[in-house]
Amino acid sequence: MFTLHPTLAADTIKIGDLSLCSVLLLNDQRYPWIVLVPKRTDIREIFELSDSDQSLFWSETNTVAKKLNAHYKADKMNVAALGNKVPQLHMHIIVRYINDAAWPAPVWGHGIAQPYTAEQSSHLKEVLVKLLLATYQS
Amino acid sequence: MFTLHPTLAADTIKIGDLSLCSVLLLNDQRYPWIVLVPKRTDIREIFELSDSDQSLFWSETNTVAKKLNAHYKADKMNVAALGNKVPQLHMHIIVRYINDAAWPAPVWGHGIAQPYTAEQSSHLKEVLVKLLLATYQS
Repeated sequence: MFTLHPTLAADTIKIGDLSLCSVLLLNDQRYPWIVLVPKRTDIREIFELSDSDQSLFWSETNTVAKKLNAHYKADKMNVAALGNKVPQLHMHIIVRYINDAAWPAPVWGHGIAQPYTAEQSSHLKEVLVKLLLATYQS
Repeated sequence: MFTLHPTLAADTIKIGDLSLCSVLLLNDQRYPWIVLVPKRTDIREIFELSDSDQSLFWSETNTVAKKLNAHYKADKMNVAALGNKVPQLHMHIIVRYINDAAWPAPVWGHGIAQPYTAEQSSHLKEVLVKLLLATYQS
């Protein structure tokens, strides 16, 4: 049975589910930052997914990146599957601005995460459910 | 007409071409590190590619990652499209080991690239053409 890695559970706010992936908001108000985690067990690398799951993974990644890019008017989207610290396969989809905290470096390892307030996260969750999950709820 | 961004041209060694992408070896012997660049003009984000090019891009990314993983017995593969410094769309596919120069951090911004010698790069090019391009040459 699929269980979210405890580090991902601790660092994120659950937004909801797409067909393949859990949609998580990284709890760091410095960047609009979504993490997609395929609801499959024991997968570390993208190519370990079945062919149909790989297609879904790429398509959900692309759709989320495109929607975040438009909604947040990003200067650049960053899309990355690293997993050096948390082995469970997960895709980072991060909105970047040329004046953000780490630009132009990658976001990992720059300063300390600034968690959302309860009010911010509740508002953001509502916005992101509508933006990212709407077609799956109708 | 497609022209490789001068920074990518300066930092890499050309291996060859897949259907969509130019296959480049990053000139840094600290990591086996391939960069795929779709041979299309004015593309910064994956979702700006046509649907069929997106499929090809993901499929070439996955195939290269899988082959590098098997050949180099990676501890982890890192797959990332960032593009904060070089806007031309390119995918990093990097073999990581738990004792490499940056582990477990991402590779970007860690120390200085260590270029291959002429002999190393000529040998590696031969190995990588065979590994990554073989099915396209028969």
